[in-house]
Amino acid sequence: MTKTNLQTLKGFRDFLPEEKRNRDYVEKKISEVFERFGFEPLETPTLEYASLLLGKYGDEADKLVYSFTDRGEREIALRYDQTVPTARILAQYQGQLPKYFRRYQIQNVFRADKPQKGRYREFTQCDIDIFGSTSTLADSEILACSYFAYKELGFKEIALNLNDRQTLMANLTPFTTDKVDVFSLIQTIDKLDKKTQIEVVAELVEKGLAEEQAKLALTTLQTTGPSDNLKAIIDGAIALGVDEKSLVFNPFLARGLDYYTGMIFEILLPEYGGSSSGGGGRYDKLIDNLGGVDVPAVGVAFGFDRTVEAAVALGLLPENKSTSQILVSVFDESLLPESLKVAGELRKAKIKTELYPAVDKLGKQFKYADQKQIPFVVIIGEEEKLANQVVLKDMSTGQQFKLSLSELVERFS
Amino acid sequence: MTKTNLQTLKGFRDFLPEEKRNRDYVEKKISEVFERFGFEPLETPTLEYASLLLGKYGDEADKLVYSFTDRGEREIALRYDQTVPTARILAQYQGQLPKYFRRYQIQNVFRADKPQKGRYREFTQCDIDIFGSTSTLADSEILACSYFAYKELGFKEIALNLNDRQTLMANLTPFTTDKVDVFSLIQTIDKLDKKTQIEVVAELVEKGLAEEQAKLALTTLQTTGPSDNLKAIIDGAIALGVDEKSLVFNPFLARGLDYYTGMIFEILLPEYGGSSSGGGGRYDKLIDNLGGVDVPAVGVAFGFDRTVEAAVALGLLPENKSTSQILVSVFDESLLPESLKVAGELRKAKIKTELYPAVDKLGKQFKYADQKQIPFVVIIGEEEKLANQVVLKDMSTGQQFKLSLSELVERFS
Repeated sequence: MTKTNLQTLKGFRDFLPEEKRNRDYVEKKISEVFERFGFEPLETPTLEYASLLLGKYGDEADKLVYSFTDRGEREIALRYDQTVPTARILAQYQGQLPKYFRRYQIQNVFRADKPQKGRYREFTQCDIDIFGSTSTLADSEILACSYFAYKELGFKEIALNLNDRQTLMANLTPFTTDKVDVFSLIQTIDKLDKKTQIEVVAELVEKGLAEEQAKLALTTLQTTGPSDNLKAIIDGAIALGVDEKSLVFNPFLARGLDYYTGMIFEILLPEYGGSSSGGGGRYDKLIDNLGGVDVPAVGVAFGFDRTVEAAVALGLLPENKSTSQILVSVFDESLLPESLKVAGELRKAKIKTELYPAVDKLGKQFKYADQKQIPFVVIIGEEEKLANQVVLKDMSTGQQFKLSLSELVERFS
Repeated sequence: MTKTNLQTLKGFRDFLPEEKRNRDYVEKKISEVFERFGFEPLETPTLEYASLLLGKYGDEADKLVYSFTDRGEREIALRYDQTVPTARILAQYQGQLPKYFRRYQIQNVFRADKPQKGRYREFTQCDIDIFGSTSTLADSEILACSYFAYKELGFKEIALNLNDRQTLMANLTPFTTDKVDVFSLIQTIDKLDKKTQIEVVAELVEKGLAEEQAKLALTTLQTTGPSDNLKAIIDGAIALGVDEKSLVFNPFLARGLDYYTGMIFEILLPEYGGSSSGGGGRYDKLIDNLGGVDVPAVGVAFGFDRTVEAAVALGLLPENKSTSQILVSVFDESLLPESLKVAGELRKAKIKTELYPAVDKLGKQFKYADQKQIPFVVIIGEEEKLANQVVLKDMSTGQQFKLSLSELVERFS
């Protein structure tokens, strides 16, 4: 193997056990909440016909799609997001899917993007969507499920910033000109979470608005309250148990993407800082555009990496540094059967147990447990064998206890 | 979207909710057992430098690796198996990994193979391995963990067919000729699970052995008992709780791959039929060959698809046809808050609950629950609201019960 070989490809990541455990924990917790809301799991292939993906995300994005020609001369491409494959699913399996299709999907996507801090070429997307309903109830469900997913992970402060794309469009349309369409205005307004109002006005002016008009546009947004549609959605979310304080109307919230048609929102975790950890909204025309079946939709995409980072930073994850709770040591060759029996009994009781896979000095076995941060070691020597006992060593304190096997099992059950 | 677009790429699969749920269930159960044995999760990227993968699996296999040139002119390739990337991990993170590294890995791999029944171009591999130990204890652990993974899924008959590659080599070496090396003999012997002894003898003769010699080779294997190494491994597995009857010495078991150096085994599920559901063994030289670090290893790869199929066929999976246990119906606009509240309370109690996402005729809502096979529907009408009750309808019997909200929650908790 040459040296080049022994590298992870640029922009890609290995997840060693400690990090992978954290990711698995977050995935498990949020999946539980998704299922509690009736969302069903879906998996689509990593590879699709390139023609399915290209031209769906805009010209700039097309350059980021990993595509190539396979040995059968097919143009194929790696998953770029989960929405386009799901649009294919909705078209391809019409009649097989329920009228209201709630699905969650947690898979990796691929983007040939410039690698930079926090941006990778393979990363996990985590989406929930309700297809088939135009009711505000579906919007409320998406908000509530997003809120409770973060709640389940232990976040104390969760803010869902909300707006209505219809209101935004209606308010901004009078300010459009021949040169500046409403989506261009929205894209600039969208920067208000990172830029000051003065900077945003300057950008609007640069785009061709008179300064007066630019300022008036912002004032118009600021003084317009939530739409009846948004009020109904918020009321629904509260009735579903979402804390009223977590539902924050933000008249400037724009969301970059063109395809939203109603409620839009972003998830903020104020304990962890400013930028959003996910976002979504209603997109009633997109599935038709993508897959040719007219299915209204509302959903959210969670930033999985950011969610894991935030949970780690805030100490919300279990502190296990090791999968195993107990290392069963091996005293010597003659006492092997006793160690094996104890390991078998602990596992029977579903206790995560590692058997030291060698006959070695006890000191070395303790050192191994220490390095791997396995919290307890069990020792069975001749004396213990005769007394039908085991020694349990707490690696954090060094304390040792004599216990019967059943006492040991009970202690960890 | 043209018609071509709306197809799943040939050789690839969509997993709609019912199938995905089954797969998730199997993955969850076996992962639990892996962790109970102290195996730690690992994830490697889908893409690697092509030079890492090519030349590692043999010339024939190289043709099956999906490889292409990315926009940065790098030659890259899709994951072909989990062993080569793990060899990279062992080399790249030397010193960061524990001396005895137990890892499990469940990820998809890609092979540009001819699609045929039961063979796909993307499929899930599921591996456990112990790196760093030459002790028979590690072999016993792999056997026991394999056994208990299938046990946990509910399989009643589990057979681990065992042999020792060393014994096989020693027994067959005297029969090699200038034309037939020992691996060629092993490849033919390996067919004894599907071919008769007469057919295998014929193939050996075709390869250049005298008929007498070919027959003697088989007799030699048949009359040689398990090696001391294999006996120790079997004793260890029994001490770890494996049923003695499940450990079957098979002197003809060969395993196709060249790299095994000690114990080899295959997992059979006799209730489901003849072919193996997984297999593995000891391969003490492979990691050095692949990654340049001398690490002994023993492990097993489960056939994930076959395991899921077998579990489905034998009725071992939960019968839920729907994720949701309860559909909370919506009586009318004015009673919406009651329905939302009930849905919220059920979910608070971790009961999987779907809210009907529209105001619609009750009949339609029942029909929806029926089609989706949601077993229960909750109805809250004016009368129930006043009496602080709900109606629970059992969709399988049509029976209806009046309950308080707390009785409802209790019933499903």
